[in-house]
Amino acid sequence: MGELRNLISIHDLDREQIDEILDVAAKMESVSVKRSKDLESKIMAVLFFEPSTRTRLSFESAMLRLGGSILGFAEAGTSSAGGKGETLADTIRTVERYADIIVMRHPLDGSARVAAEFSSIPIINAGSGSEEHPTQALLDLYSIKKLKGKIDGLTISLCGDLKYGRTVHSLGMGLSHYDVKIKLAAPQQLRMKPAIIDEMKKAGVEVVQVDDVKEAIQDVDVIYMTRIQKERFPDVREYDKVKGRFRIGTEQVELLRDDAIVLHPLPRVDELSSNIDHLPQAKYFDQVYNGVILRMAVLKMILG
Amino acid sequence: MGELRNLISIHDLDREQIDEILDVAAKMESVSVKRSKDLESKIMAVLFFEPSTRTRLSFESAMLRLGGSILGFAEAGTSSAGGKGETLADTIRTVERYADIIVMRHPLDGSARVAAEFSSIPIINAGSGSEEHPTQALLDLYSIKKLKGKIDGLTISLCGDLKYGRTVHSLGMGLSHYDVKIKLAAPQQLRMKPAIIDEMKKAGVEVVQVDDVKEAIQDVDVIYMTRIQKERFPDVREYDKVKGRFRIGTEQVELLRDDAIVLHPLPRVDELSSNIDHLPQAKYFDQVYNGVILRMAVLKMILG
Amino acid sequence: MGELRNLISIHDLDREQIDEILDVAAKMESVSVKRSKDLESKIMAVLFFEPSTRTRLSFESAMLRLGGSILGFAEAGTSSAGGKGETLADTIRTVERYADIIVMRHPLDGSARVAAEFSSIPIINAGSGSEEHPTQALLDLYSIKKLKGKIDGLTISLCGDLKYGRTVHSLGMGLSHYDVKIKLAAPQQLRMKPAIIDEMKKAGVEVVQVDDVKEAIQDVDVIYMTRIQKERFPDVREYDKVKGRFRIGTEQVELLRDDAIVLHPLPRVDELSSNIDHLPQAKYFDQVYNGVILRMAVLKMILG
Repeated sequence: MGELRNLISIHDLDREQIDEILDVAAKMESVSVKRSKDLESKIMAVLFFEPSTRTRLSFESAMLRLGGSILGFAEAGTSSAGGKGETLADTIRTVERYADIIVMRHPLDGSARVAAEFSSIPIINAGSGSEEHPTQALLDLYSIKKLKGKIDGLTISLCGDLKYGRTVHSLGMGLSHYDVKIKLAAPQQLRMKPAIIDEMKKAGVEVVQVDDVKEAIQDVDVIYMTRIQKERFPDVREYDKVKGRFRIGTEQVELLRDDAIVLHPLPRVDELSSNIDHLPQAKYFDQVYNGVILRMAVLKMILG
Repeated sequence: MGELRNLISIHDLDREQIDEILDVAAKMESVSVKRSKDLESKIMAVLFFEPSTRTRLSFESAMLRLGGSILGFAEAGTSSAGGKGETLADTIRTVERYADIIVMRHPLDGSARVAAEFSSIPIINAGSGSEEHPTQALLDLYSIKKLKGKIDGLTISLCGDLKYGRTVHSLGMGLSHYDVKIKLAAPQQLRMKPAIIDEMKKAGVEVVQVDDVKEAIQDVDVIYMTRIQKERFPDVREYDKVKGRFRIGTEQVELLRDDAIVLHPLPRVDELSSNIDHLPQAKYFDQVYNGVILRMAVLKMILG
Repeated sequence: MGELRNLISIHDLDREQIDEILDVAAKMESVSVKRSKDLESKIMAVLFFEPSTRTRLSFESAMLRLGGSILGFAEAGTSSAGGKGETLADTIRTVERYADIIVMRHPLDGSARVAAEFSSIPIINAGSGSEEHPTQALLDLYSIKKLKGKIDGLTISLCGDLKYGRTVHSLGMGLSHYDVKIKLAAPQQLRMKPAIIDEMKKAGVEVVQVDDVKEAIQDVDVIYMTRIQKERFPDVREYDKVKGRFRIGTEQVELLRDDAIVLHPLPRVDELSSNIDHLPQAKYFDQVYNGVILRMAVLKMILG
């Protein structure tokens, strides 16, 4: 592959590049345990204009395991960027003087790409708007490959909020590079945008829309659940109607194949009952660790 | 002692364990000055669901002196944990994938023990609810032993807010393992709970309740003052009535023995006049440094 | 020069000391690129009672490039110092036990000097009240010397808010040690305080007050623009009247000499059009990097 410079969108990567990232991640499993000094002199700036403890700490853990250092902010409120009306371009042209790489989360679609245009150092998109979250998609792909041994040939259900959830958009695009069958299960008002479905179909993926979790769960290799996020709803009554209709508990879990796996980008609320956490199919906390591994790979490939 | 795995409550430690921790702390005095790389590859997560600069920075300083790294959050507001309704169990099962040890402060009693039940990595309780703050109790014991040469045989006054202050609860329990006499001096509505007094007496401690600071201060080896915390009062008028009645200033200090020491968990407001800071008995800022030393010992024993 | 112990005010430095700091900074240019372990065992506490991402990250980047570690807080809200009514003196006497040097920003004039009186470890003032910001002045002097090859003999315009902006106060004092001519260009209600002008004149500086940016820009070596900060205005209508009257865009830039340089402490709002960013005279982002270099020099001189 060409050298990995920025990581803005899963759309920017072809299958060969994704496979290489997943291969480097596999090598990071042992580095993560032993720790390394490969990036000892490197500084990672974390610019979280929108708070996200999970993603931020995952990147920080990855950087620390590679021996690097960290600076930045966890919310725009404590930043000049937020309070004093500075443009994103100016913030980036400033922070690029402080660090060797920028990991940023921003509430606006396209913000990471704008940042990359102005930056002389690499940018990793840690979530922008409702569309892109490429390292989440890559860690999801890595989790599937690690746990199922392959991606090609699998049937994968994406469940929950498929309209506002940026993780399923990025994952759907990532899966398009593989020979998979995808089931989409969402409430009427939270269905995946037709444009994204069309893109998956064009790439050769068989896409089926189903109406409830029971259909989604049967005879598949991977169930990818997502939280129905209250804060994404324009109308709170809409939220109350769909909340809890798409969930997996002890009753639903009986429909799961023994070798199926359940993933979730977390945090969860009610959509995955804690009653199923002990089951061998429940892999969402292993997935958290895979996020550290995958981000080590990305940092290593860009900075190493 | 058995290997130190978690540090949740002073109640979990017997005298032998406490003495061993204090002995390791004594060895950390020189390590603190020279610095070390003993924990070079280790990552400490600080999860402060309730802000506390002092305790957080003390742990961070301890970890950095041992060569380790740090990630985490200083208040729940910037954390998914806070904003998105995630359970403490899920937060812990996530963060355990990012770090080698978790140092947590949480507003709820029992939260650290719940965390330890779910965690595959060690948990240190940096303050939970109004009851537990075990590293504070240990650093107080270490300060007494370092400054007075021993703990057995001493007379120790605990003054101020003995009802809501978690530091005096934990310290009282810690002192119960030693042959000490304890004077309790608190306003009527802030007296220590009878259950805690009973527990100290059962352990063989002579406990005397006195009515004001003048009685508390006379003929004792250690005065342990605490702040009467406004935020702990259900009724602000209750606070205004007692504030300032239990304080040590230049007048009270004349009653102190020359070899007595005054301790305080800090921050102070009015209960210790800054007029006495220069006196040889005023040891509360030395106590701050002892907190770094003691926490180095705990981190080293758990992770080293 | 005498050993550099604290850095509280540009007033405390004589020309010899300033020149030495600028010389050490020049040596830091290569260290910044290669990184160093000179301060490997040192801990820098950042105490930002008033948020400032730029200055904080600049200090952190400087410390990390020298191999040191960092702890602290980015806003007083998450600090005991803020919430629990602790005095600055007590906060300092606490934090001096956690770190080897304190970098602090505080909203009150004189706060850094008070801190230095109580501290047993060095204090660097990262901005106090509306008066002092010595590392900004030094990085501005360093930028001028690096870009123009010298400071003596130059004509320098200070433009914008000269009344409330602490960067121009400190820079004006710093320039007083050199053989320079200074033009001051500010709206009527934002003119530099006569006391500061008098001090510059007493030091032998030729000071001229001009009425608009066009006069300020012509036939000078350095234009130092500042933002007219809304938050400094007692009356918002006053702000609306002057905003935008003192700005440099493509029209004004034609009056610039080819070898002139435009500096700005950033963040900017409207006073520098982004249309001029590509011009060779626009040096304000280089200036950001010079801030890292200068702060490396100061940290190295105090701690190394």
